[in-house]
Amino acid sequence: MSGLSLTSPGTAPNGPTVADAGERDLVRRVRQRAGAPPPFVPIGIGDDAAVVEPMRGMLDVVTTDVLVEGVHFRRDWTEPRAIGAKAVTVNFSDLAAMGARPRVVTLSLVLPAALPLADFDALIDGVAAECAAAGASLVGGNIARSPGPLVIDVTAIGAANRRRILRRTGGRAGDGLYLTGAVGGAAAGLAILESGAERGALNAESLACVARYEGPVARLRCGRMVAARRAASACMDLSDGLADAVRQIAEASGTGAEIDSTAIPVQPGAASWLARGGADPIDAALTGGEDYELLFAVPPRRRKAFLAAIRHVGNLPVAKVGTLTRDPAITLMRAGVATTLNSGFSHF
Amino acid sequence: MSGLSLTSPGTAPNGPTVADAGERDLVRRVRQRAGAPPPFVPIGIGDDAAVVEPMRGMLDVVTTDVLVEGVHFRRDWTEPRAIGAKAVTVNFSDLAAMGARPRVVTLSLVLPAALPLADFDALIDGVAAECAAAGASLVGGNIARSPGPLVIDVTAIGAANRRRILRRTGGRAGDGLYLTGAVGGAAAGLAILESGAERGALNAESLACVARYEGPVARLRCGRMVAARRAASACMDLSDGLADAVRQIAEASGTGAEIDSTAIPVQPGAASWLARGGADPIDAALTGGEDYELLFAVPPRRRKAFLAAIRHVGNLPVAKVGTLTRDPAITLMRAGVATTLNSGFSHF
Repeated sequence: MSGLSLTSPGTAPNGPTVADAGERDLVRRVRQRAGAPPPFVPIGIGDDAAVVEPMRGMLDVVTTDVLVEGVHFRRDWTEPRAIGAKAVTVNFSDLAAMGARPRVVTLSLVLPAALPLADFDALIDGVAAECAAAGASLVGGNIARSPGPLVIDVTAIGAANRRRILRRTGGRAGDGLYLTGAVGGAAAGLAILESGAERGALNAESLACVARYEGPVARLRCGRMVAARRAASACMDLSDGLADAVRQIAEASGTGAEIDSTAIPVQPGAASWLARGGADPIDAALTGGEDYELLFAVPPRRRKAFLAAIRHVGNLPVAKVGTLTRDPAITLMRAGVATTLNSGFSHF
Repeated sequence: MSGLSLTSPGTAPNGPTVADAGERDLVRRVRQRAGAPPPFVPIGIGDDAAVVEPMRGMLDVVTTDVLVEGVHFRRDWTEPRAIGAKAVTVNFSDLAAMGARPRVVTLSLVLPAALPLADFDALIDGVAAECAAAGASLVGGNIARSPGPLVIDVTAIGAANRRRILRRTGGRAGDGLYLTGAVGGAAAGLAILESGAERGALNAESLACVARYEGPVARLRCGRMVAARRAASACMDLSDGLADAVRQIAEASGTGAEIDSTAIPVQPGAASWLARGGADPIDAALTGGEDYELLFAVPPRRRKAFLAAIRHVGNLPVAKVGTLTRDPAITLMRAGVATTLNSGFSHF
């Protein structure tokens, strides 16, 4: 995963475009970059459909997520390789939240005719590298023309043990809410890009925020470890922010939740960017999307097993940020005062 | 499947839009229309990912295809319900070409904010109806905002017996090339819509061409029947036209092909529309895309088994349009003269 580079993104506009290459050559380029399919994929790219051998005794876990130019990324901000990788990561994060292992990926590309061929290649390199890093295989897809933005739609299929799947619905009042990593980094990274700041002028913490926004990491090993030990009653990933995840787990589980503002780990260097324009940095960290951390509900009697699973992942901090409650309200405790947790984020 | 209507498509522009509804309500509407998931889908719409029980002893067959506004459809031409249905059909056609049975579908929607909510509902109704008609289930997806065109990306997963899968690669010199149904109808339908002709002024044959373009049928039963009897050595669907399919099967099989122009079944009423602008109607029927018929390569000794499988489908004409050849050229025989078959179609 490239994640971040100090060079200016994109390539010279004078090279060949995807329209110059034509569809057959583009498919050939994808096939080349996808590499040979593994033994469990008897038919990969190049036929009407891909054929995949299910994993014996396991269930298929299927998710779809899209990146749209101008909504989820800008080509003048982010390198095509990082865009391609992130299009896969956001799907793997959903698989991580179910405790599933990624196996195969399909890629649907809607391409502006003027997209430089070098950017196309780099984008596919990012997709392929992200797949390979997770042990998954790019097995098929589709290429169509766009009269507007570049659209990268990915479907990922993973495998999970039927008795170990993590759902949103299993939480109970009294379960602790545990968060991996830190929040606010991606929102700060986006604020930095929006500010027009030169990357060369940013300090290491600010660059790490940009890297978090451009190159998030799916917590695949963590999701699998916790699922394998049945150490959580519910789980979801933070695509739309911590506040949204808390509300969704609580609603799906038929509980309320109470979050402690002092327990929320905010990514180093993010607070000052989140506070720009007068926003409260904790509010911004709670509602900022795209950190792709995992939020777990953990029954008190599974706390030790949960922490053992996390230790097994290695070097991944977790913080207890709150508790599921019998009271259906979703509250944020700040300096001893309970306020309603505002989930803020909406795509429309 | 609505396919065709004599009323003007779309709805009044004054009703609520998808932006008024918001993402959560849109997901609720999809969930409502998708209906309860079948027993083999323990987790459907509403969690981080869907969970699907693979069919015992069968392989997963996975395909992705997209419809893009302004490229594949126009909202001022075609009703949203037909657009939604077709987005599913084009995927099921790929499964048909592999001999697979559709089981689950995911739907990724990229929506302009001004899309009327009634059109959104109708589009989902079309998706759900097309899934239901094939015994498949809409199990998940994603909704994002579009700064440009409406994009409908579908991934379909089917099941196929590992020893009965139809590929493009199995053809041999001497195999007959058999085509289901007729070609040219969809291209004629598109020409009719492009001409601006009033639907009320069209005759039944012309309306049938428009219906073919707007509401194609995936030859699922045919693909499965032929696969079950191992009656074909290769198969592919006609998304990009007959000439393209002939070339792809021949190239994948390491053969050439010879097509007989007099054997090509052109949809009734299509020829006069295809000939507009001075084109040769047979050339136009050969290169026109989107008929979604199936092209089979059939070894001479399997001819009877193939025709028995087709009879079993009921009321589906097939025509022998040519033969795979040892000579690698792809030729079209016209009035005794061999010419190179031009595949014409390209997305870029």
